[in-house]
Amino acid sequence: MSRIPAPSRLITLTTDFGTRDGYAGAMKGVIRSTAPEAWVEDITHDIAPGDIRAGAWALRSAIPFFPRGTVHVVVVDPGVGTSRTAMIALADGQYLIGPDNGVFSWVLAEAAQVRAWSLHDRSWRVKDPSNTFHGRDLFAHAAALIAQEGDPELVLGGDMVPMVCGWARSIQVEHGGTGEIVHVDHFGNLVTNLRLPSLLPGQMWKIQVPGCGLCLHGLKRTYGEAEPEQALALTGSHGFLEIAVRQGSAARQLGLHPGEKVTLSRLDA
Amino acid sequence: MSRIPAPSRLITLTTDFGTRDGYAGAMKGVIRSTAPEAWVEDITHDIAPGDIRAGAWALRSAIPFFPRGTVHVVVVDPGVGTSRTAMIALADGQYLIGPDNGVFSWVLAEAAQVRAWSLHDRSWRVKDPSNTFHGRDLFAHAAALIAQEGDPELVLGGDMVPMVCGWARSIQVEHGGTGEIVHVDHFGNLVTNLRLPSLLPGQMWKIQVPGCGLCLHGLKRTYGEAEPEQALALTGSHGFLEIAVRQGSAARQLGLHPGEKVTLSRLDA
Amino acid sequence: MSRIPAPSRLITLTTDFGTRDGYAGAMKGVIRSTAPEAWVEDITHDIAPGDIRAGAWALRSAIPFFPRGTVHVVVVDPGVGTSRTAMIALADGQYLIGPDNGVFSWVLAEAAQVRAWSLHDRSWRVKDPSNTFHGRDLFAHAAALIAQEGDPELVLGGDMVPMVCGWARSIQVEHGGTGEIVHVDHFGNLVTNLRLPSLLPGQMWKIQVPGCGLCLHGLKRTYGEAEPEQALALTGSHGFLEIAVRQGSAARQLGLHPGEKVTLSRLDA
Repeated sequence: MSRIPAPSRLITLTTDFGTRDGYAGAMKGVIRSTAPEAWVEDITHDIAPGDIRAGAWALRSAIPFFPRGTVHVVVVDPGVGTSRTAMIALADGQYLIGPDNGVFSWVLAEAAQVRAWSLHDRSWRVKDPSNTFHGRDLFAHAAALIAQEGDPELVLGGDMVPMVCGWARSIQVEHGGTGEIVHVDHFGNLVTNLRLPSLLPGQMWKIQVPGCGLCLHGLKRTYGEAEPEQALALTGSHGFLEIAVRQGSAARQLGLHPGEKVTLSRLDA
Repeated sequence: MSRIPAPSRLITLTTDFGTRDGYAGAMKGVIRSTAPEAWVEDITHDIAPGDIRAGAWALRSAIPFFPRGTVHVVVVDPGVGTSRTAMIALADGQYLIGPDNGVFSWVLAEAAQVRAWSLHDRSWRVKDPSNTFHGRDLFAHAAALIAQEGDPELVLGGDMVPMVCGWARSIQVEHGGTGEIVHVDHFGNLVTNLRLPSLLPGQMWKIQVPGCGLCLHGLKRTYGEAEPEQALALTGSHGFLEIAVRQGSAARQLGLHPGEKVTLSRLDA
Repeated sequence: MSRIPAPSRLITLTTDFGTRDGYAGAMKGVIRSTAPEAWVEDITHDIAPGDIRAGAWALRSAIPFFPRGTVHVVVVDPGVGTSRTAMIALADGQYLIGPDNGVFSWVLAEAAQVRAWSLHDRSWRVKDPSNTFHGRDLFAHAAALIAQEGDPELVLGGDMVPMVCGWARSIQVEHGGTGEIVHVDHFGNLVTNLRLPSLLPGQMWKIQVPGCGLCLHGLKRTYGEAEPEQALALTGSHGFLEIAVRQGSAARQLGLHPGEKVTLSRLDA
C-alpha cells in the first residue's frame, strides 16, 4: 500500500448537526486533542438532518478544490450505530471518512481513482465509544490520528466497495437529453444533472421543464443577463445546467423540487 | 499559583451573536491582533439570544473534549455592562472566560476541580471599552493575551465562587428516578438529566413522560433500532437518557419542552 | 508602490452563500491549495442573498479589528459576471478583495487612507473560470496568491475609485440631528448612523422616531439599565446611537426598518 499518499494535517468537517448543541464543537475538540497541529476547516454543519443527498452535493461542490491529502470527515448519518459500515476512502487523493450510506456518492462517482476500506476497529478507538455519536468517537478520532501520524494504515480495515447512489449520475449532453433537478441551492437555483459541452457562439438551446410548463430559449452566461425576477438557464459553476431567477428564488417562483425532469435540446444542430 | 497550567494558543468561541452582523468576526480580529499565532475554533454562534441555559448545554457537550489549556471564550451575556462579574475559571484544565451568569453551570457542576477569579481590570484592557460588547473588548482580548503570553495571571483578579444554576444537575439512576428534560437538540431529541448505569443485557426499563402520556418500554442502543417515526429512549452520547423519534423530531411530535418531568423505572430489579 | 504593506497569511471570508451547498467550502479549498499555511477565518456566510448593505455593515463591524495586512475576501455579488469590476483595495492597512458594488462602502467611507485597483487578469487566474462563481475562481484565488507570496502586486490592475454608496454615511451629532436606521442586528437592535460625542454626566438627550411615535428621554449606558421589554437608547459598541428593547427585539416590537428617520436632540444645552 505504499502508493497511498500521506494524509495532510488539513481536516474538513461536514455534518447535519448545526452548531448550537456543541456536537460539532466536540468533534473539533477531539481532533485538536489528538492532532494539536491540525487545521480544521468547516465545510458546513447545516445539511438538513439526515439529508444524505444534500450532503453528497455539498461534498461534490467543495472537496475537489482542496489540496491532495486533505482528510474530509463527514457525518450525515441517520443510521449511526446500525449495520452501515464506517468507511475510509481515497478518491483522487482526497481522504473521505464517514458512514457508507451514499453521502460520498457524487465525489466517488466523479473521481477517476477510488479505493475504499472499512475503518478497522483496533486499539486506536476511544474507550467506550457512544452508539449514537460516531462523528465524535470514531470518525473525528480516526481523521485526527492519520493526520497527526501521516499514516492512513493505522485505521484501514478490509477493502470494500462503497455505496454510490443512483441519483449521483451526470448526463453528458451533446445535442439534447433529459435529466433532472438534483439540488436546490441556498439562492433557490435549480441545479440539474445535465452536463453541457463547451458553449460556442451561435448555439441555440431550448430548456423545458414539463412539470411547470417552463420553456426557455437560449443559455445565459451569468445571472445578470436576465431581467430582474425572470427565469434563465445557464451553465453553473459546477458545470451543470442550472435554472435560476435573477434576484429571486427559482425554486420558490417555479415551485420545483429535486427529481423534476428537465429536457435540453439544441435547435441549431 | 504555580500549579495553574499554562493556557495553550487554542481559543474557542461560543456566542449568541449569529455571524451576520460581524460581531463574532470582530472578536476573531481582536484575538488575531493580540495573538497572531492563536488557533481560533468556533464552537457556535447560534445560541438563541440570551439563552444562558442553551449556552451552558453546548459548552458541556464540547469543552471536555478539548485539550487541557484550551481557552474558551463565551458570550451569552444578556446582563452585559451591569453588575454581573466578568470571570475566568479553570475547570479540569480548561480555561473559561465570560460572564458569571450561569452559562458555565454544567461545565462547572461536572468538573472535578474548579477555581475561579474575577477578570481584573488593569492595563491590559482596551482603551475605552464599550459598555455593550464585552465579548470583543474584554473577553476576547483577555483570552488572546493569556494565550499569547502563556500566563493566566495577567488577567486574574480576586478569587470568587462562580454561579452554578440549579438546572445543571444530573441525577444518577440506579433502579429508578424522576428527572426532567434539560435540552432539546437540533434534531428535536429530548435530553434529560437522568444518568443511567452501564446497561446490562436483560435489564428492563420503563420510561414515562406524564406530561404527554408517553410510556416506553426498554432502551434502544441507537436511533436506527426503532421503526421510522416511532419514539424511542436511549442513552445519548452525553451519557443521559434521551427520548428521540427515528427520522423525526421528538420535540415536535410529542410537544415537549425543557422542564417536562421524565420518570425512569427498572422493571426487572 | 513600495509603500504598500505586505499582506499577511490571514484571510477572512464574508459571503451570502450560507454553507450548506459547499460553495464556501470550495473557497476554503482553493485558498488552502494555493496557500497551504494561510489562516482562514469566517466572518460570516449568512448575509442575506444579494444584500450588499447588510454585507457592508458586517464588514464595518469586523474588519477594523483585524491586524494590518489581513486579506478580506467578500462575495456578496448579485452582479457576478456582469460589467461590475473585480477589485482589490487597501483601506487603513486592510486588504479588501471582492466586487466593486458598494459592499465595501462603510469600510471605505471610514478609512483614513484608501487605495483601490481593479484585479488584473493575468496568468495567475484559474483556467476556465466560471462566469457565476468569482468568489471561488477569482477572489479566493487572488487572496491566497498574495497571502502566499506576500506580494499584492501580483494581482494589481489599474487604479480605480471604488463605489461608496450614499447610505454609508455617519452623522456627527453635537447638540442634535436627524439620521436614520442603517442596520437591524441579530438581536433586533436598531442601529442608526448618528454618532454621539463622548457622553458626560448630566447631559439630557431626547430620541424620537416619528415613524412609530417613539420618544425616549435619556441615554442608557447598557441594555440592562432598562426594564425588561422596555425600549431604550444607548451608544452601541459601533459608536452609533442604537435603539434596543431589553430582552426583546426592537425591530419586531416597534416595527421599524432600515431607512426610518431618527432624531436626536439635546435638552440641557
